[in-house]
Amino acid sequence: MSALRLHPDRFFPADAGTRSVARALFRRVETLPILSPHGHTDPRWFATDAPFEEATSLFLWPDHYVLRMLHSQGVTLEALGFQTAGADRRAAWKLFAANYHLFRGTPSRLWLDHVFATVFGFDERLGPATADDYYDRINTALKLGAFRPRALLTRFNIEKLATTEGALDNLADHETIAREWPGHVVTTYRPDDVTDPDKDRFAANVERFGATSWAGYLKAHQERRAVFRAHGATATDHGHPTAATANLSAAEAQALFDRLLRGKREAGDAELFRAQMLTEMAKMSCDDGMTMQIHPGSFRNHNAALFAKYGANVGADIPMRTDYVHALKPLLDVVGNRAGLTIILFTLDETNYARELAPLAGHYPCLKLGPAWWFHDSPEGMLRFRRQVTETAGFYNTVGFNDDTRAFFSIPARHDLARRIDASYLAELVTSHRLDEDEAHEVIVDLAYNLPKAAYKL
Amino acid sequence: MSALRLHPDRFFPADAGTRSVARALFRRVETLPILSPHGHTDPRWFATDAPFEEATSLFLWPDHYVLRMLHSQGVTLEALGFQTAGADRRAAWKLFAANYHLFRGTPSRLWLDHVFATVFGFDERLGPATADDYYDRINTALKLGAFRPRALLTRFNIEKLATTEGALDNLADHETIAREWPGHVVTTYRPDDVTDPDKDRFAANVERFGATSWAGYLKAHQERRAVFRAHGATATDHGHPTAATANLSAAEAQALFDRLLRGKREAGDAELFRAQMLTEMAKMSCDDGMTMQIHPGSFRNHNAALFAKYGANVGADIPMRTDYVHALKPLLDVVGNRAGLTIILFTLDETNYARELAPLAGHYPCLKLGPAWWFHDSPEGMLRFRRQVTETAGFYNTVGFNDDTRAFFSIPARHDLARRIDASYLAELVTSHRLDEDEAHEVIVDLAYNLPKAAYKL
Amino acid sequence: MSALRLHPDRFFPADAGTRSVARALFRRVETLPILSPHGHTDPRWFATDAPFEEATSLFLWPDHYVLRMLHSQGVTLEALGFQTAGADRRAAWKLFAANYHLFRGTPSRLWLDHVFATVFGFDERLGPATADDYYDRINTALKLGAFRPRALLTRFNIEKLATTEGALDNLADHETIAREWPGHVVTTYRPDDVTDPDKDRFAANVERFGATSWAGYLKAHQERRAVFRAHGATATDHGHPTAATANLSAAEAQALFDRLLRGKREAGDAELFRAQMLTEMAKMSCDDGMTMQIHPGSFRNHNAALFAKYGANVGADIPMRTDYVHALKPLLDVVGNRAGLTIILFTLDETNYARELAPLAGHYPCLKLGPAWWFHDSPEGMLRFRRQVTETAGFYNTVGFNDDTRAFFSIPARHDLARRIDASYLAELVTSHRLDEDEAHEVIVDLAYNLPKAAYKL
Repeated sequence: MSALRLHPDRFFPADAGTRSVARALFRRVETLPILSPHGHTDPRWFATDAPFEEATSLFLWPDHYVLRMLHSQGVTLEALGFQTAGADRRAAWKLFAANYHLFRGTPSRLWLDHVFATVFGFDERLGPATADDYYDRINTALKLGAFRPRALLTRFNIEKLATTEGALDNLADHETIAREWPGHVVTTYRPDDVTDPDKDRFAANVERFGATSWAGYLKAHQERRAVFRAHGATATDHGHPTAATANLSAAEAQALFDRLLRGKREAGDAELFRAQMLTEMAKMSCDDGMTMQIHPGSFRNHNAALFAKYGANVGADIPMRTDYVHALKPLLDVVGNRAGLTIILFTLDETNYARELAPLAGHYPCLKLGPAWWFHDSPEGMLRFRRQVTETAGFYNTVGFNDDTRAFFSIPARHDLARRIDASYLAELVTSHRLDEDEAHEVIVDLAYNLPKAAYKL
Repeated sequence: MSALRLHPDRFFPADAGTRSVARALFRRVETLPILSPHGHTDPRWFATDAPFEEATSLFLWPDHYVLRMLHSQGVTLEALGFQTAGADRRAAWKLFAANYHLFRGTPSRLWLDHVFATVFGFDERLGPATADDYYDRINTALKLGAFRPRALLTRFNIEKLATTEGALDNLADHETIAREWPGHVVTTYRPDDVTDPDKDRFAANVERFGATSWAGYLKAHQERRAVFRAHGATATDHGHPTAATANLSAAEAQALFDRLLRGKREAGDAELFRAQMLTEMAKMSCDDGMTMQIHPGSFRNHNAALFAKYGANVGADIPMRTDYVHALKPLLDVVGNRAGLTIILFTLDETNYARELAPLAGHYPCLKLGPAWWFHDSPEGMLRFRRQVTETAGFYNTVGFNDDTRAFFSIPARHDLARRIDASYLAELVTSHRLDEDEAHEVIVDLAYNLPKAAYKL
Repeated sequence: MSALRLHPDRFFPADAGTRSVARALFRRVETLPILSPHGHTDPRWFATDAPFEEATSLFLWPDHYVLRMLHSQGVTLEALGFQTAGADRRAAWKLFAANYHLFRGTPSRLWLDHVFATVFGFDERLGPATADDYYDRINTALKLGAFRPRALLTRFNIEKLATTEGALDNLADHETIAREWPGHVVTTYRPDDVTDPDKDRFAANVERFGATSWAGYLKAHQERRAVFRAHGATATDHGHPTAATANLSAAEAQALFDRLLRGKREAGDAELFRAQMLTEMAKMSCDDGMTMQIHPGSFRNHNAALFAKYGANVGADIPMRTDYVHALKPLLDVVGNRAGLTIILFTLDETNYARELAPLAGHYPCLKLGPAWWFHDSPEGMLRFRRQVTETAGFYNTVGFNDDTRAFFSIPARHDLARRIDASYLAELVTSHRLDEDEAHEVIVDLAYNLPKAAYKL
């Protein structure tokens, strides 16, 4: 058995002088409250405050990073008891533990170790020899009041946490939260189910949405956005295959809407509708002040057999090459120079950081850059983001960190990592005399707190 | 108020041993004369040697990097008095100073601080508290003889400076320079106005060029190139949207020329004409010895509203994905193996450094790689260039540094930065025993002086 | 004259603490036997065990990296005596030596210096002053028994070396090797000559292959694969322009086969056939257990004039942008989740490391990532590979190092470099507390020995 220890200097640069600057910068933000303006935790947790069930269903089954890696190495989802009634959860946990070495060098390992050490107090590494002890101690802890969702949110020092709900969600959990425990957890408007004609049940969704004409459809969005805002939402989110935008006339849009809903869909119509809806959402944001997030570039459910058997979110979403410079122009021609509008761009295609995204965000008033996302939410990924973005976009066209996670327990781990990487990057600038140390101390606070607060209007 | 200080070790690696090697390498080239073979300063400055007007019109309004960043953060060009008769220039300067923190981490900040410290002797940082003092002292200094263009060029230790003029330019300023103050400032042949059919007034330009047939058009180029050479030009420059080249027969070229000038343009004709002209220019370079530069990959004037209001060069040019391997083949099939021909390639798409550009330049005798360009003319950008290019193309298929600037005062700052980054990269090679120190001392001199001198025949 | 010395800490990070960790990690694998599961050495060397001829024909003429660089700097292949009967080999060697500075900063220089120092014992750098001495001493050494192929393979500590032969090769050399000197050298099945319709003599090759129908053609592959396996092959290799795969019905495949062989080829047929053949090869690998390697993305013989004069492999192959996420889907839909199948992906387009390849290999059981390849088989290239791949794919979806070389003498140099870079990367993880040191000591052995042994079933 090997020691599990979170080193106080973890993730800092090796050079002693730079490390010392990084340490001082990190100390400045270490205990700042966490703002989590984009994520996918389940609002029911906070509405009911029920205890979490047990270790395997909490840490293994819902984590697509973990499932992905285990599957890639021949550990089948069947063997892990995934989506299996009456599965042997302890056996699944032990199989996970037996393969924990697969995660060496990955952020999953860093997040998990942080949770195990700081939330549960483990001081030995997870592995075959410690699997049972881990399983038992986690399950025992989860029964305690201190491990209930609301208590943990407080313990995690989370000032504000945004979940994400579809346009058709009734927001019942957020009703309960607002009534019983207001102030910490808000929703986000994610209308993909009614804006993406390639979604299953798109036509039925639009019908439930109450829209029979293009004008009525837009009005339904305006109304739902208002309802979401009444439940604390300050932002919308759009997960499209590409960043394509369009600027159709009302007549063209009505015709497109009709084709899509009356079964006369033509090639390119779905993409064009999504594209038009990004522009529509941007225009509505000009009116109602909601911050807009665009998350393009994922080939969803690439593994056909796994999707057929288990559905989405089993780790088979693969990034694609993504264009922004042409794709966003129609939208930018409409709202690009609007003050007060904030559109946050994300990417899974890092080649865009320096080539397209930083120049765009470094020019257009409405554009800001979201942090390194998904596969790139990692030490190297975050450093690549800062190194490729900052020289053109500066710090003030970025919006701090998003944890983007459904893994509630890992939120502190992820923000700890992000703050340490930002401190490391800033320390490098200081040590190489590209930034004065007093300025770096201002910037680190902006990155950890002020920029997300402003960008998301928290 | 905070101190403004240029640290003698700025931009060097953090590791003490590596830094010491970098310092020694930099010392070798620190005082070498500056060769500036590609840039956009105004030849009128050197023709008239008139004093520069004042701070805002010198440092703020012409700098598209600065305008871009301020615009991106909601500081409008109106508020900056841009293109406004009777604008309050002091107020504009103070607005710039109040937003100076936006430039943290950007090369603009490094260049400006270098100018403020070394040219004007400031020892406090620009900001709200020092804005007036900066404004007054700069304006006072600009009235002194020592701050006139020619005196500064000497003070800056610039051995040779190339400006860039269009094919239709009468070169009157260069006439004056050649007559009154020869030896330092030369022109460059940039024929985009008559080679790019997408330019405004293309047909009128070609008419002014005196060309009514394809053969006559080529002859006009040959003649203008000769005139430019007589004014010191050793190079041509071509700013195309893509790197496409073509190799048409004379009959095909004549037909294309006719279509473009008689209003019968077909889809793809403009691109094809630009493509053909790169090959024609390369063939002429084989004859007259002019070095050829290709600068592709910028989506010009992306912000339609700003372009309509203010015209070009306000910071809305955005890089695009660029292909070289297929695009250059027609040209390379014609002149690729010609000894004595030098074609210098630039890119805004860094993904090409290791994938296409270094392998091409590391094979074809006529190809060399220009330095990290525009958005990538920065510490991280230059390091990425060296790290991704050197292992395949070596050092001797590169051509040293170009400042590519219209900001005359920043030329020493940019060359200082480039030399320090090259010293840093070489020091890393030495410390990791990938290059012997005596060789690094040869290479640093080659990069700073010998390679640009040879590539541009200065 | 300057000293030639291989520093014991070469390629390690500069920081003293990290370097010390790297040194300890490297020591763990320094003397492990070399596994070379993918390469292009000539089996005749080991079949005949004849002495190598002399220096120029051994080190200069066959090395496309060296030819490429010299050609790019105007040293013509003629001047180097390439493919010239009766060429003055000493003069060619001296020309190479006079231009040895061109290789500064390139891996060619590192490999060559390693060979010169460790195999031949030189302690002065190659250059004009030492050219004759190098030439004479190398030629003298090559006559010694200790410098014959089999003795060197033993001296190089090569446990297993795979060569690569075409589907039509009679494997006579491997017959001899198996009879006279079994155990070290095996073949690899590379069927491009009969799977790529764009190859010269494709139709004739297929005829020699004995196939007149699609079914017969597949059967011929199965039989040749069996013959190759009988000669030690454990892997196949496929060098296609793209990574395209297809999944045609038998009828569609038969029709395609007929069109290609009866001269009725349609646009896209060649690409479609190659695409289909990758899927067929993958299905055969499911049956016979051979590991499959896909090497896409090279624009072969880009320099038309040089190809016409000298044929292939003179350094004019240029990488192209490559897609994997769409290209591989048809194949993955068929075999993606098959346990026991191993498909190793390579790339010349590094933008895919983090964007497509690591997510694919980090999900699909059949996919593994080959090491940094060709132009990227270098210190920076290998580090980029690890930094961009590990966080998503981990270490265990990679397969250790391939030297991929026809330069037999450089095999130890290349593995030495790869092991040192892996040690350096792991040391960085340890120093920044992203990986525990005891785990790094396990991983370094896996990367150097266990992973290639398993992936290639050696």
